[in-house]
Amino acid sequence: MAGSSFGELFRFTTWGESHGPAIGVVVDGVPSRLPLAEPEIQHWLDRRKPGQSKFTTQRQEPDRVEILSGVFEGVTTGTPISLLIRNEDQRSKDYGEIKDLYRPGHADFTYDAKYGLRDYRGGGRSSARETASRVAAGAIARKVLGPEIKITGYLVQIGSDSIDREQMNLSLIERNSFWCPDPAAAERWEQQLLTIRKSGSSVGAVIEVVAEGVPAGWGAPIYGKLDQDLAAAMMSINAVKGVEIGAGFEAATLSGEQNADEMRMGNQGVSFLSNHAGGILGGISTGQPVVARFAVKPTSSILSPRQTVDRSGRDTDILTKGRHDPCVGIRAVPVGEAMMACVLADHFLRHRGQVGG
Amino acid sequence: MAGSSFGELFRFTTWGESHGPAIGVVVDGVPSRLPLAEPEIQHWLDRRKPGQSKFTTQRQEPDRVEILSGVFEGVTTGTPISLLIRNEDQRSKDYGEIKDLYRPGHADFTYDAKYGLRDYRGGGRSSARETASRVAAGAIARKVLGPEIKITGYLVQIGSDSIDREQMNLSLIERNSFWCPDPAAAERWEQQLLTIRKSGSSVGAVIEVVAEGVPAGWGAPIYGKLDQDLAAAMMSINAVKGVEIGAGFEAATLSGEQNADEMRMGNQGVSFLSNHAGGILGGISTGQPVVARFAVKPTSSILSPRQTVDRSGRDTDILTKGRHDPCVGIRAVPVGEAMMACVLADHFLRHRGQVGG
Amino acid sequence: MAGSSFGELFRFTTWGESHGPAIGVVVDGVPSRLPLAEPEIQHWLDRRKPGQSKFTTQRQEPDRVEILSGVFEGVTTGTPISLLIRNEDQRSKDYGEIKDLYRPGHADFTYDAKYGLRDYRGGGRSSARETASRVAAGAIARKVLGPEIKITGYLVQIGSDSIDREQMNLSLIERNSFWCPDPAAAERWEQQLLTIRKSGSSVGAVIEVVAEGVPAGWGAPIYGKLDQDLAAAMMSINAVKGVEIGAGFEAATLSGEQNADEMRMGNQGVSFLSNHAGGILGGISTGQPVVARFAVKPTSSILSPRQTVDRSGRDTDILTKGRHDPCVGIRAVPVGEAMMACVLADHFLRHRGQVGG
Amino acid sequence: MAGSSFGELFRFTTWGESHGPAIGVVVDGVPSRLPLAEPEIQHWLDRRKPGQSKFTTQRQEPDRVEILSGVFEGVTTGTPISLLIRNEDQRSKDYGEIKDLYRPGHADFTYDAKYGLRDYRGGGRSSARETASRVAAGAIARKVLGPEIKITGYLVQIGSDSIDREQMNLSLIERNSFWCPDPAAAERWEQQLLTIRKSGSSVGAVIEVVAEGVPAGWGAPIYGKLDQDLAAAMMSINAVKGVEIGAGFEAATLSGEQNADEMRMGNQGVSFLSNHAGGILGGISTGQPVVARFAVKPTSSILSPRQTVDRSGRDTDILTKGRHDPCVGIRAVPVGEAMMACVLADHFLRHRGQVGG
Repeated sequence: MAGSSFGELFRFTTWGESHGPAIGVVVDGVPSRLPLAEPEIQHWLDRRKPGQSKFTTQRQEPDRVEILSGVFEGVTTGTPISLLIRNEDQRSKDYGEIKDLYRPGHADFTYDAKYGLRDYRGGGRSSARETASRVAAGAIARKVLGPEIKITGYLVQIGSDSIDREQMNLSLIERNSFWCPDPAAAERWEQQLLTIRKSGSSVGAVIEVVAEGVPAGWGAPIYGKLDQDLAAAMMSINAVKGVEIGAGFEAATLSGEQNADEMRMGNQGVSFLSNHAGGILGGISTGQPVVARFAVKPTSSILSPRQTVDRSGRDTDILTKGRHDPCVGIRAVPVGEAMMACVLADHFLRHRGQVGG
Repeated sequence: MAGSSFGELFRFTTWGESHGPAIGVVVDGVPSRLPLAEPEIQHWLDRRKPGQSKFTTQRQEPDRVEILSGVFEGVTTGTPISLLIRNEDQRSKDYGEIKDLYRPGHADFTYDAKYGLRDYRGGGRSSARETASRVAAGAIARKVLGPEIKITGYLVQIGSDSIDREQMNLSLIERNSFWCPDPAAAERWEQQLLTIRKSGSSVGAVIEVVAEGVPAGWGAPIYGKLDQDLAAAMMSINAVKGVEIGAGFEAATLSGEQNADEMRMGNQGVSFLSNHAGGILGGISTGQPVVARFAVKPTSSILSPRQTVDRSGRDTDILTKGRHDPCVGIRAVPVGEAMMACVLADHFLRHRGQVGG
Repeated sequence: MAGSSFGELFRFTTWGESHGPAIGVVVDGVPSRLPLAEPEIQHWLDRRKPGQSKFTTQRQEPDRVEILSGVFEGVTTGTPISLLIRNEDQRSKDYGEIKDLYRPGHADFTYDAKYGLRDYRGGGRSSARETASRVAAGAIARKVLGPEIKITGYLVQIGSDSIDREQMNLSLIERNSFWCPDPAAAERWEQQLLTIRKSGSSVGAVIEVVAEGVPAGWGAPIYGKLDQDLAAAMMSINAVKGVEIGAGFEAATLSGEQNADEMRMGNQGVSFLSNHAGGILGGISTGQPVVARFAVKPTSSILSPRQTVDRSGRDTDILTKGRHDPCVGIRAVPVGEAMMACVLADHFLRHRGQVGG
Repeated sequence: MAGSSFGELFRFTTWGESHGPAIGVVVDGVPSRLPLAEPEIQHWLDRRKPGQSKFTTQRQEPDRVEILSGVFEGVTTGTPISLLIRNEDQRSKDYGEIKDLYRPGHADFTYDAKYGLRDYRGGGRSSARETASRVAAGAIARKVLGPEIKITGYLVQIGSDSIDREQMNLSLIERNSFWCPDPAAAERWEQQLLTIRKSGSSVGAVIEVVAEGVPAGWGAPIYGKLDQDLAAAMMSINAVKGVEIGAGFEAATLSGEQNADEMRMGNQGVSFLSNHAGGILGGISTGQPVVARFAVKPTSSILSPRQTVDRSGRDTDILTKGRHDPCVGIRAVPVGEAMMACVLADHFLRHRGQVGG
C-alpha cells in the first residue's frame, strides 16, 4: 500500500517536507481514555530538537506540537490523533544553489529518478526533519504501553570508538551530549567530534535501544515477527544502514553452546541466564529485555568538495554549505526509542487482538 | 493484519508445519502471461533441499512442488498461484521426548507463552522447513523480474572466518559446499565444519545477496523504503539476527568523505564511483547493485546438554538428538536470494503502479 | 494489496479454479486452542454443496475438506490453517466449445480484457466454486465467535415474489429447497422454479442474513465500519448486485421519526424499540441483531441463444449447455452466512485489539 | 488495520472532529508531476459546502482548504499530500445539553459502548463534517484519473418519489437545489422538502453516481473487485444504508434473458447492448459506464421528541434543536462522486501495477 504509514493496529502516517509550511503525523488505532496532552508529546520532541548541543545542527526549530484531533477533555477518544508541527526556520535561500545538483549520499538523485522532480529545499521529504513526526508518534505509543515498559536508547559507538560495556551506566546518558552510558567514551567522543566538526567532516555511529518490561508472547510467527518489524522500523530511519537484534552480527561468530540462552526457574517464572537472543525467539518476545541496535552512516553534507553530476548530465563538484550535524547518529537516539515504542505498541494491540488478555 | 503474508502487490502467504501433511504458499498479484511450470520452481527448491551436502541436515525430503492454481496452458493467469509441497520424511517419534521441554535458542518457550500450546514435532511452524515456501515464491518472483535482474547469494563468513574480498569470484560459488566465492575460505570452512560437526556443536554465518540490473527508481520514501523491506524480509528468516545494506555497520566507522558515493556521467547515464550505499539512497534504488547482508546465528540444536526448564516449571537439562545442520547459514543462501527476489518483484509492481512505465 | 485475501486480523486467502486440481483457503490470525476438526467444517460445506436439490446444479462434488496445517491434537495452534478441497467432477470437455466466446453476464470478456487470457474451463477463477472456500473459512469464523453468536441466512425473495414477513418462521428454513422462512412462499417458489428450469431460463433472488448476539461496540468509525465491511463482503460474492443493512433502500422512503430506533432501559441494559439500523450505528454494533441483505442476479447461463462476440472480434450467438442452477441465489445462502461470520470474527479481534476485553 | 484510511495504492487517511480545531486528510500514493493547486480542490469542496441552499444546514463554513505538503512548484511530488480545513463556526454551546443523552439514529450510544466516552460536540468524529475530507481527496483522485474519466452524481429519489428516467437530462443537475436530472421531479421535491422542513422532520434519498470513460480491465477477481470496493466506499459514507451496482436489487426480479447484457462488435471494439451489469463483470470493468447507487436514511436530527436513555441509564426524551438538513442525501452527492473517484484512482494504479500499461 501507499508508503507513508507504519504499523498495523497502532498505525501512524507522516507527511510534510523540510521547508513546507508544516510537517505532521496522524496516529490511528490508539485505545481510548488514555490521558494525553501536548506537553507530554513536547517532552519527547524536545529531546530530539536540533540546536541544543554543539554537535547537532544549529537550525533553530521550536518544534511546537499541536494536537488537532482525537483527544477530548484530556483523554484519547479512540479516533485518529492528528499532530502538527509548523516549520518556522526555513531559509529556503540556503538551498537554491544545489537545486540542480545531486548531492552524493543524499536522495537527490533517486527521488529525481523515480518522480521526475524533487523538492530540493533542505531535502524535502527525505529530510531528517520527518523524524520529528516519529518521535511524536512514539510519545503516544509510550502512553499505550504504559509505565511498566521502559525504553532507553543510547550511543554505543561513534566512528570506530565503542563504549566499554563494563563501564556502562544508563543513568549517565542524559549527562553528556551523546546519550552515552560510558563517561570515558563520552569524553573521547567530545574530542573526536570537535576535530571532525572543525574539518567540516562527519562520522557515523551505532545506537542501541532497549525495552524492559515487555512480557513474553508479543510478536507472531514468520511474517509478523517482532524482530522483523523492529528491523523495518529502524531501517526506515534516515541514514540507517544496518540493524541487529541481541547478539546481532556477533552471533555469526558464536558456537551453539555460547549462543543458546539457558533457562532456569526463577521467582517470577522462567529466567534466562543470558540474552543473546535480544529478548526475541521465533519472532516472539521472551520476557527478557528487547535489544535492538542500528548503524547510522556519516552525514553526507560535508565541507569537502565531492564529484557529482547535475540534472542536465554534466560532471561537476559539490560542497555542502549551511548548518549540519557532524554526527546525525546523536539525534537518532530519540528516534530509535520512538520506533521501538511504536513497534511494541502495535504488537501489544495485535497480540491482544488474537490472544486476548 | 494476520502475520503469515509478505509483500503488498506481489504478496505471498505461507502455511504449514514441519511434521504436518504438507507445507505450501499462495502467491498473489503475479502478472499474467508469464510462462511457468513446476520444474522452474523445482530448480530453486533443489538448491535449498536438505541432504545434499555433508554439512546440512540428513533429513531426506524430495520437496516436490505441485502447482495447484493460477497457471493455465503453461502461463500465469493473474490469479493466485497455490504451491504445495508434501512432507514425506516426518519421523515424529524423534521429537516426542522433547515435547515438554523448552529447547534454548528455539521458539518452544515463546510459542507456548503466546498460544498456550505448541506443535512440538520438529518445531512445527517455527521449523526452517517453512523457508522452502519462500524459495518457491522466490522462483515466481524471478519470473516477474525477468532475466535482466540477476540475484546471487553466497556466504561471506562462517564463525569468525571471513572471505578475502580480493579473492572473490562469484563463478565459484556452486563449486563448493558453502556457496563460497573464495576458494581458500571454502577449504578452511570445510575443515572447521568437520570439527564442529564431530563435536556436535554449531556455528553461525553471514550471507550476502546481490541483485544486479535493478533500475534506478524502485522503492519509495519513508515507510515504503526498499531497504526497509529488505531488512524485514531478511530478518523474518529463521535464525537471522542482523541485516545490513551496503557498507552496513561499517558505515558507522567511515567519514562522510569516505562514505559518499561520488558520481560521474558514464555512457549509460549516471555512474557511481563506489557503492557504500548498497544501491539504495533515501529508500530508492540508485541503479547500482543492491547489496544486502544478514547474520545467521548458530543452530540451537547441539549435542551438549544445556540447562532449561520444562512446561511444568521444573529445572532440567536438554540435549538435542537427531539430524541437524552444524551451520544453518549454508541453507539460508537460497532463502536470502528468494527474499531479495520477492522484495524486488513487489517494488517493481508498486513502482509501476504509482509511476507507470 | 493483492486481491485474494479478505479481512484484517481474521484474514483468509482463497485460491483455485473451477477445473484445476483443487481449490483452497488459508485462514490466518485464528486464536489458539479452539477445538477444530474436519467434520465441523464439512458440516457447513455440505449445506452449500451442489447436487442436493432439484433447483441447484447437478454437478456432483463431494467437496471433501482436508485440514493441512494450523491444527494440532484437535485444537488450533494460532498459526495459519490451510484447507484444501479437491476438484473431482471436472468434465473439462463440456467447456471447450465456449473457449473463444464471451458469455454475456459472465466474466469471460473482462478477464480477457485485463489479463490477455482466461481459464475458460467452467469460469476458472470466476466460478462460484470459489465460494466453497468462503464457507470453509466461515466455519472457522464461527468457532472464533463462539456459540453466543447465531448467524442465520435465508431467502426473502425470488424474482418479484417476496416472503410475507408476518409469516416468517426461521425454524422452517431447513425444511424446503430454498432456505425459505415462509412456507407459503416456498410453495409458490417451487412452482415458479419448475417453470423456469423447464424453459432453460433463470431468475434472481434476495438473501437476508441475521447475526444475533453481537455485543454493542464492534466495528469502528469511518473506514473501519462494520457495515462497510459487510457491504464489501457481500458484494464480493459472485453475482451479487446490491447490499443493504437494516431498512436498506427502504430507509430512503422513511421520515426521520419513522427511521429513528428509539431506546428504553431494559433488564439487560439499553433496549431498542425497532431495528431500522440493522444493528449498526456509526459503523459500530448496537447490540441488536445485525441484519444484512443482498441481491443476486439471475444465472447468466441460460438455454436461449444470446448475441455475443468471440475473441477474434466476430459477432456470433451463444447458448449455454450443461448443468446449471436456475437460481444461484439459493446456494448463496450459506455463502452469505459465512461472510457474515468472517466479518464479525475479524471485528471481534480488531475490537479486542484496540479496546481490550 | 487501523480504520481511518481508505484505498490501497491511492490511499487517504482522514482525521478530525466536527468541533475540534480542524479536520483534514492525508492522500498518499499520488503519482508525481500532476498540476495541483488549492483552488482545484476548493472547487469541489464548494459544491459540498453547507449553507448554500435552503435545504441544507445553515451552518456557515468557509471550508477553506490548505495544502500543507506533497506539492512543489505547482505539481505533485509523489509524496503524501496533507490537506487541512479549519473549523470556524463551531458553536459548541449548542451541543452541551445533549452530552449525556443518546440521540436515536446517531452514533452516540455506540461510540460510548465502544470507547467509554464520546466527543459529544456536533457528533465529534461521527459528524458528516468528515465527508469534506473525502471530497478533498476525491478532487485529487480526479487529477489522477485525468479528464477522460467523467464522474457525475445526482439524486434519483427523495422519499418515495423517484425521477422519471425518460426525462433524465444530466445537463440540468446543477440548475436546481437537488442535483436532480428530472426538472419535474425537482419541482415536486421542492414542495416536499418545504413541508418537511417546516414540520421539523426529515426524509431519505437515493443517489446515483456514474463514471464514464473507465476502460475495460480495471478491478480484480474475488476480493479485489471494483464493485466490492465501491460498495465499501459508499457504505462508509454517513447515513448510507444500501448500495447497488447497475440493476442492483432489481436484478433479483429479472430473468437471465433480460439481465444478460448482449454484445456486438462496434467501431471501438466490443459494444454492449444494455448495462444491467453497471459496467462491472466478475469484479472487473467492462468499458461501459460504471453505475453505483446508494440510499441515505433520513436525518436523525428532528424536532419531534423521541424516546431515549441517558448515560446513567435513565429513560428520557430528546428533541434535537439547532441547524440541520431535512435531507442529508442532497449533500451526499458530491461525497458519492468523490468516493467513486477515489476507488477508480486506486484501481487504476493497482491495475497498472499488476498488468502494466
